[in-house]
Amino acid sequence: MKNKITITSLCSLFALGALTLPAAAQDAVPVQSVFIFNTLLFLISGVLVMWMAAGFAMLEAGMVRSKNASMQLTKNISLFSIAAIMYYLIGYNLMYPGGAWFIGSDDGGGYLGAFGVAVLEAVGIAPEAADDLSYASTASDFFFQLMFCATTASIVSGTLAERIKLWPFLIFTVVLTGLLYPIQASWKWGGGFLHTQLGFLDFAGSTVVHSVGGWAALTGAIILGARRGKYGDNGEIHPIPGSNMPMATLGTFILWLGWFGFNGGSQLAAGSVGDITDVSRIFANTNAGAAGGAVAALLLTQIIYKKVDITMVLNGALAGLVSITAEPLTPSLGSATLIGAIGGVIVVFSVPLLDKLKIDDVVGAIPVHLFAGIWGTIAVLFTNSEATPYGQIASIIIVGVFMVVTSSVVWLILQGVMGLRVSEDEELLGLDKEEIGIEAYPEFTKI
Amino acid sequence: MKNKITITSLCSLFALGALTLPAAAQDAVPVQSVFIFNTLLFLISGVLVMWMAAGFAMLEAGMVRSKNASMQLTKNISLFSIAAIMYYLIGYNLMYPGGAWFIGSDDGGGYLGAFGVAVLEAVGIAPEAADDLSYASTASDFFFQLMFCATTASIVSGTLAERIKLWPFLIFTVVLTGLLYPIQASWKWGGGFLHTQLGFLDFAGSTVVHSVGGWAALTGAIILGARRGKYGDNGEIHPIPGSNMPMATLGTFILWLGWFGFNGGSQLAAGSVGDITDVSRIFANTNAGAAGGAVAALLLTQIIYKKVDITMVLNGALAGLVSITAEPLTPSLGSATLIGAIGGVIVVFSVPLLDKLKIDDVVGAIPVHLFAGIWGTIAVLFTNSEATPYGQIASIIIVGVFMVVTSSVVWLILQGVMGLRVSEDEELLGLDKEEIGIEAYPEFTKI
Amino acid sequence: MKNKITITSLCSLFALGALTLPAAAQDAVPVQSVFIFNTLLFLISGVLVMWMAAGFAMLEAGMVRSKNASMQLTKNISLFSIAAIMYYLIGYNLMYPGGAWFIGSDDGGGYLGAFGVAVLEAVGIAPEAADDLSYASTASDFFFQLMFCATTASIVSGTLAERIKLWPFLIFTVVLTGLLYPIQASWKWGGGFLHTQLGFLDFAGSTVVHSVGGWAALTGAIILGARRGKYGDNGEIHPIPGSNMPMATLGTFILWLGWFGFNGGSQLAAGSVGDITDVSRIFANTNAGAAGGAVAALLLTQIIYKKVDITMVLNGALAGLVSITAEPLTPSLGSATLIGAIGGVIVVFSVPLLDKLKIDDVVGAIPVHLFAGIWGTIAVLFTNSEATPYGQIASIIIVGVFMVVTSSVVWLILQGVMGLRVSEDEELLGLDKEEIGIEAYPEFTKI
Repeated sequence: MKNKITITSLCSLFALGALTLPAAAQDAVPVQSVFIFNTLLFLISGVLVMWMAAGFAMLEAGMVRSKNASMQLTKNISLFSIAAIMYYLIGYNLMYPGGAWFIGSDDGGGYLGAFGVAVLEAVGIAPEAADDLSYASTASDFFFQLMFCATTASIVSGTLAERIKLWPFLIFTVVLTGLLYPIQASWKWGGGFLHTQLGFLDFAGSTVVHSVGGWAALTGAIILGARRGKYGDNGEIHPIPGSNMPMATLGTFILWLGWFGFNGGSQLAAGSVGDITDVSRIFANTNAGAAGGAVAALLLTQIIYKKVDITMVLNGALAGLVSITAEPLTPSLGSATLIGAIGGVIVVFSVPLLDKLKIDDVVGAIPVHLFAGIWGTIAVLFTNSEATPYGQIASIIIVGVFMVVTSSVVWLILQGVMGLRVSEDEELLGLDKEEIGIEAYPEFTKI
Repeated sequence: MKNKITITSLCSLFALGALTLPAAAQDAVPVQSVFIFNTLLFLISGVLVMWMAAGFAMLEAGMVRSKNASMQLTKNISLFSIAAIMYYLIGYNLMYPGGAWFIGSDDGGGYLGAFGVAVLEAVGIAPEAADDLSYASTASDFFFQLMFCATTASIVSGTLAERIKLWPFLIFTVVLTGLLYPIQASWKWGGGFLHTQLGFLDFAGSTVVHSVGGWAALTGAIILGARRGKYGDNGEIHPIPGSNMPMATLGTFILWLGWFGFNGGSQLAAGSVGDITDVSRIFANTNAGAAGGAVAALLLTQIIYKKVDITMVLNGALAGLVSITAEPLTPSLGSATLIGAIGGVIVVFSVPLLDKLKIDDVVGAIPVHLFAGIWGTIAVLFTNSEATPYGQIASIIIVGVFMVVTSSVVWLILQGVMGLRVSEDEELLGLDKEEIGIEAYPEFTKI
Repeated sequence: MKNKITITSLCSLFALGALTLPAAAQDAVPVQSVFIFNTLLFLISGVLVMWMAAGFAMLEAGMVRSKNASMQLTKNISLFSIAAIMYYLIGYNLMYPGGAWFIGSDDGGGYLGAFGVAVLEAVGIAPEAADDLSYASTASDFFFQLMFCATTASIVSGTLAERIKLWPFLIFTVVLTGLLYPIQASWKWGGGFLHTQLGFLDFAGSTVVHSVGGWAALTGAIILGARRGKYGDNGEIHPIPGSNMPMATLGTFILWLGWFGFNGGSQLAAGSVGDITDVSRIFANTNAGAAGGAVAALLLTQIIYKKVDITMVLNGALAGLVSITAEPLTPSLGSATLIGAIGGVIVVFSVPLLDKLKIDDVVGAIPVHLFAGIWGTIAVLFTNSEATPYGQIASIIIVGVFMVVTSSVVWLILQGVMGLRVSEDEELLGLDKEEIGIEAYPEFTKI
């Protein structure tokens, strides 16, 4: 009978939750639920980041003249599609070699990832067959990471608008999304040498995504030259207004929205109290960074120019977002607002600076993505004690040199082989007529 | 051996799920999973409600003349950014004093919340360190609630479009999002006196959000006066058509979409079968309310005017959404459709009524958010037996008096100090030229 | 003492997770969590598919001339609202009779579902009171399925733009969403005869949704005739350019985004490692299909026409999405890209084919939704070994015949009773002036 009693009392203890295991079993998140939560985070975040492709398309279509809007739309939907194919064919495994580096190793420093197409887990897998049950489904990871690759390409298209030919741009996109982005991303996010040797911290990609797109845009803008009529012979600058501000504003709101996935998803986990609370912090801080950037640009343009410049406010919000991207987790709400605000200030001052250098950036992508990206990467030092000045700055430089060299080479090869720039006639007439054949607004345009 | 058998059979019972505890452990949602589900609900819903800011921006940009569209866009992105900062600085703790009222108490009735900036949970917290493990992460709550505050400000901007100066409007937004909205919201959602003493029911804010924005818009519209040319000397009304119906329709669809987060997230929990089923009811009913409002306006404008007025259909859908917001959970699908339809009817009849009173509401926000908000708050009485006529009506009046008095005072002070209204010249020329300097559509406009 | 030891060791085993049950209790997803995950999948996916209604509205508003844009917007928001009401009143139970067929049975073959309004689960139900605890909340299922019904109606409106009267179109929508769509959908997804007798496989509705909308569009286009001026007397074709390409592109991006919900949600479950991994595969493959379709159209129009046609790229992406819809789970990423690419090729070749037949499809919905829908349904045979040629092709034909016959009858009755087509004057002047009274862009249009 004692035995029976003992067993009964064991059951009672279970029922009271007093024994270790049942308490854990009732309170903690089961392993398979963690996998589902993590995967859900990737899927939801990936959808949000995918939506950023529409944001870039709308922002750019609104910031160009109507005679080039169809071209800009074509470039945006095409680059996103090309990124999807290239990242599948080569990018994903180049970026995530999983230790199997083509050049280098996890310990000694990875430099060039693995070659091969992305392979997803089988249909209807059992838990024990998952590639990594403690992480998330491979397809959700691929889906999420692909969107970052595509974002990088989106950044380039805005700067070079209104004068670059369609096909050289798309071929550049092939190289950028298949090789350049994945290779440098592997150095940090694939566990390569920036990660292991320099201790580089870049949570969601102020450097890995935004500065990379910005560098490629910068080299392209310099090699391509400015739009005709933008800069006068005597140093005067002729503003070329965008054709559709509601579209540009819509694009900015879309990007703002998508950024919750961009930064939030980069937590890479949502299946514990700590992880989901971190994701929440990231959402709140990302929003604070954007708000700080917008308000800074709002106040500053009013003070400097006595008028609020809507395009500066839009770019201020975006610069705030880029600035908070390298470290959206550790700042307080106040710090996040401030980090974003400094991003907004950078934009207001660097847009005219670029014009003085006669670097023609149609949408302001270089200030927003490159300059604020560098700022954001440095700002990690102020809120995350694990970051080191050497690690951050050396990584910014290494990635910058890599991108300047490789992207310049690609631009120059394309220029030599097929020419980058449309003819003077085509530029005057608008790219839509010559290369697309379909006007964006056939019934509206006065010209 | 008996012992062994007993233990074996215990294990068997476990394996069969026949014992109480293991059955529970296998079937029920673990506490930490509940926390994650609840937090996810806030994050996903918060993102959807954030998206409503873009909806208001597009709706309003489409409903104003093109000469004022850049201004309207500037106001919308700026007010959202200001709301983010003010709610962080002061609004969140004013609204949610957590029992620590500055004036009043949870028991005796809370009247004025606590002062102080919002503070998020630490990075990577352990479950036992969560502010409230039975609820959701604080950052996710902040993120979600902030969006409601911003929505209230968005409502105001549409009504006052095309004649209010930028800066007085933005200063009003500072007061509205930092003080007025949070204070009255604390009365209900912070556990204040409307909640404890009047038993006021307002699930997602027909009164707390929509009527509050509507009251501020109404006092602003009266103090500001109508747009020049809108009302003739002999009582005739000159319609001023909006410049971009696709933008306005896009804005409406965005708001419709965002409303699933607005109402669904207000369940505040998603971690049990009962809660997620309630969230699902809310989604279905919210959609039904919008559909009812749209179809009612569609039929009614055809019957009355022999033409379908697209702006009425859009506002009908929005009024349906506002109407179902005070109680999206308890109605059946049929009741929800009917409640929304009555909202649509209210819009069709009250838009011309406002015009008769020479109250110039550019986008129809007063009928949609104030009138339908009052209707929705009263409609709770028909489907939720816990609501009382006194509690609902007294709360509508108390909130209304508070908002009319405080918002009027703020508008009048701003009028005295810096002037609310642009000059006659600026109004004729368009606000974009004078205050923004960037036209919305520089290549399109005929005028 | 032995006994004690045994029990202790039992506890130890529990603590080590070595015994079957506790291991399961810690690792596996609890039943109620599965319910929540599944319901979340429906809610999130339903919201994404709801967003597709905005996508169709923007795509169509951009592809029509500005004089008909307000009408097109009115049709889109109205049809979505009507679908919501009709699916509630009759569609849901017609489509999901739950075995209680009006004509037929689950075993013998279901042909006509049940009549009655949709009824949701009660507020705050206990787990044991759920309609199906192993599935998801009824309201979430209703919400998700409703969106598919509405999508079908959205497909029709684009083809018939610029010449069909508002009210006959809306009455057709009543019949389509209340009767035609639900009846044929019950044959497959309600467990009817296509499912049980033919083994028809159509994961997310290449046939059940897209071809059904396409057939109704085709019969409508033939009965209605082409727009005046589209086809000359001597067989020449006069292109009628759309008025707003950024809007059309936005619409395409919205549809692309929404499609993740369309296909991903059709997994109908997300509460196990296998299910969420499958959802992830579907997301990745859906994106691959769209990318394949866009790139195929991009390359092909460049090769054939020496210019890239942006409308073809947009429709190529959409055709890729429709093509992968019948089986987004089983293909590899490479196969999915290829299946989508063939969809893009179909569009490029079939748009001019329709023009030769003088079937005037304003937005290209027949190539995209009908032709690519048929292709996608056949393509299941290449990646899913459970599909049979007979089951796929017979089902395509049965659904096609049903839709051609019933939709033709409805169109012809409407033509006889009230006329389908606007007058010649109204068509020239634009439908907005006559039937809507509000121009889409009153300040822009040159004409």
